[in-house]
Amino acid sequence: MVYNFNAGPSILPKEVLDEASRAILDFNGTGLSILEIGHRTPAFESVMHEAISLTKELMQLGPDKEVMFLHGGATTQFFQVPMNFLDVHGVAAYLDGGIWGSKAAKEASLYGHAEVVASSSDRQYTYIPKGFKVPSDASYLHITTNNTVEGTQMWHFPDVDVPLVADMSSDILSREMDFNRFSLIYAGAQKNIGAAGVCMVVADKSFISRRVRKLPAMMDYGKHIENGSMLNTPPVFAVYVCLLTLRWLKSKGGIKGIEDENLRKSSLLYDTLDALPQFRPTVAKEDRSQMNVVFVMDDPEAAEEFLALCDKERMVGVKGHRSVGGFRVSLYNAMPFESVKVLTDLMRHFAGKH
Amino acid sequence: MVYNFNAGPSILPKEVLDEASRAILDFNGTGLSILEIGHRTPAFESVMHEAISLTKELMQLGPDKEVMFLHGGATTQFFQVPMNFLDVHGVAAYLDGGIWGSKAAKEASLYGHAEVVASSSDRQYTYIPKGFKVPSDASYLHITTNNTVEGTQMWHFPDVDVPLVADMSSDILSREMDFNRFSLIYAGAQKNIGAAGVCMVVADKSFISRRVRKLPAMMDYGKHIENGSMLNTPPVFAVYVCLLTLRWLKSKGGIKGIEDENLRKSSLLYDTLDALPQFRPTVAKEDRSQMNVVFVMDDPEAAEEFLALCDKERMVGVKGHRSVGGFRVSLYNAMPFESVKVLTDLMRHFAGKH
Repeated sequence: MVYNFNAGPSILPKEVLDEASRAILDFNGTGLSILEIGHRTPAFESVMHEAISLTKELMQLGPDKEVMFLHGGATTQFFQVPMNFLDVHGVAAYLDGGIWGSKAAKEASLYGHAEVVASSSDRQYTYIPKGFKVPSDASYLHITTNNTVEGTQMWHFPDVDVPLVADMSSDILSREMDFNRFSLIYAGAQKNIGAAGVCMVVADKSFISRRVRKLPAMMDYGKHIENGSMLNTPPVFAVYVCLLTLRWLKSKGGIKGIEDENLRKSSLLYDTLDALPQFRPTVAKEDRSQMNVVFVMDDPEAAEEFLALCDKERMVGVKGHRSVGGFRVSLYNAMPFESVKVLTDLMRHFAGKH
Repeated sequence: MVYNFNAGPSILPKEVLDEASRAILDFNGTGLSILEIGHRTPAFESVMHEAISLTKELMQLGPDKEVMFLHGGATTQFFQVPMNFLDVHGVAAYLDGGIWGSKAAKEASLYGHAEVVASSSDRQYTYIPKGFKVPSDASYLHITTNNTVEGTQMWHFPDVDVPLVADMSSDILSREMDFNRFSLIYAGAQKNIGAAGVCMVVADKSFISRRVRKLPAMMDYGKHIENGSMLNTPPVFAVYVCLLTLRWLKSKGGIKGIEDENLRKSSLLYDTLDALPQFRPTVAKEDRSQMNVVFVMDDPEAAEEFLALCDKERMVGVKGHRSVGGFRVSLYNAMPFESVKVLTDLMRHFAGKH
């Protein structure tokens, strides 16, 4: 048994892996591998349709919302969003709450003025910036709902008059929220949606109509919608893994069901960290992430020892991001409560000896 | 037994599917699925390194060549190439030998002047245009070495003084050629390299240095090279399937070995078509593709009947592209000679009855 606390690519439900493995040999009794079927066949078209409709159902999206499964990951969205919506003479507002949001703002500055409306870089992004103003003429406000690297999460969303664009790569589908208030949401699949190699985009049709420049086909959200995410050959297998994961999520009671479980998991871990003086969470209490729990150990020798112990107990992915150091434990949807229990027991045991 | 003549996504070697299926459950004894491992782990880094070095070995690339595995498919390359290399006041030459080349030229016109130096659109792209002139100041000449939809293939490459850029999506690794004469080669993986969801790019370091504008990170070949195709989370599983397919190709005697087999397969099919009056190949004899064999049947009733017969015999993917009609039989590297024999036997049997 390996305990996979990786930040992404990360743990997937066992049921998903079993079915994906079978589909590589024979997809739905077609006698063909999911890797070999044409994307313009009823067999795959039904995969894409179901993935899109399940997303709409689970996120309770309104009729104006479109769902896309696109190539390229969130880093592609960093420039695709401003390429579509930020005019060369325009302004877009960016909340700088972590290294990914900072990178998104940098990409936007290639297309127009990217105004950072607030930043928590003054304290290594250990909190979520609050109480900022957004220019009323901004094409959109871009936020990152969960900062994977730094371990902060937004629990309140700004009430703004401009369209809200959110990178939800590391907390999408993990908690209930009004997804309909966002004009555009994007999320790399490799945390809560599926495997690496595809990005989910949810957007308002009315927002999509505001594109400001001529676009290459692959960058044009409008064309992707018209073509049902089949403008070119989609990442067939990656979309299929999304479908399997979405089905699994539905079987777990949907977003509400998984949110309860996520709260149990993160509460157990944070309570343990707070109770043990050897471990110190790094982020502001009110901004703690349920998905990525970041902490340090002030004694470097003990830290080394604990890391080695995790390794010995086959707990992988607990080392902090290279830019932060310390520890990071990711508790995505597919992580069982029992695995968090094993980790916290290990922590208590370790602390008792030190 | 299903005979998979799909044009892409298409047939993959059985050994590749078996190993990919196993790796979904347990990758190399790590206890983790290939879908769950972090991309910045030695386990995956070695996959990427081996995929790159095997590509260099199989294509016999010189020391100036770099290999990348990128998100997005060939359609992304249609605009990424001019975005990198075509200045707004510059010119790039395009050979218009099929619908994909035509689309590539259209995308280039967003970035500068895309000059179509020759076209075979006058006869539905049933031949490869020859004997054209390329402006000496062109940033590059773009060609499509095999036209998947129309079934033509370039057997001679233009001798030009400008950098040669080639879309080799449907015939890469299928025949020996001097890959080093190309400044940039790209190919969607879902035909001869692996599964859908990744694109291979081979480029000269010196050509890459000619980028003409500021680029978003994900569009910048230079950044991808610097980061060893790990600028962001790569399409991990798709790259892994490439590696398995490259290993398989090596075991088959490399490109030379597979080329001999491809010649046997396509000769058998074309000879059969030429011998039977009911079937009529549509493209100029000297430009026939070894990968995609396109033909029609002049009697529409017989065509319907033959299509139904293929369906009954579990031969899939033989229907022509929606833009061309008729039939298209794809014979990529992984297609066994024996399957082509079964198809041609069926053709002879059918013709004998009509």
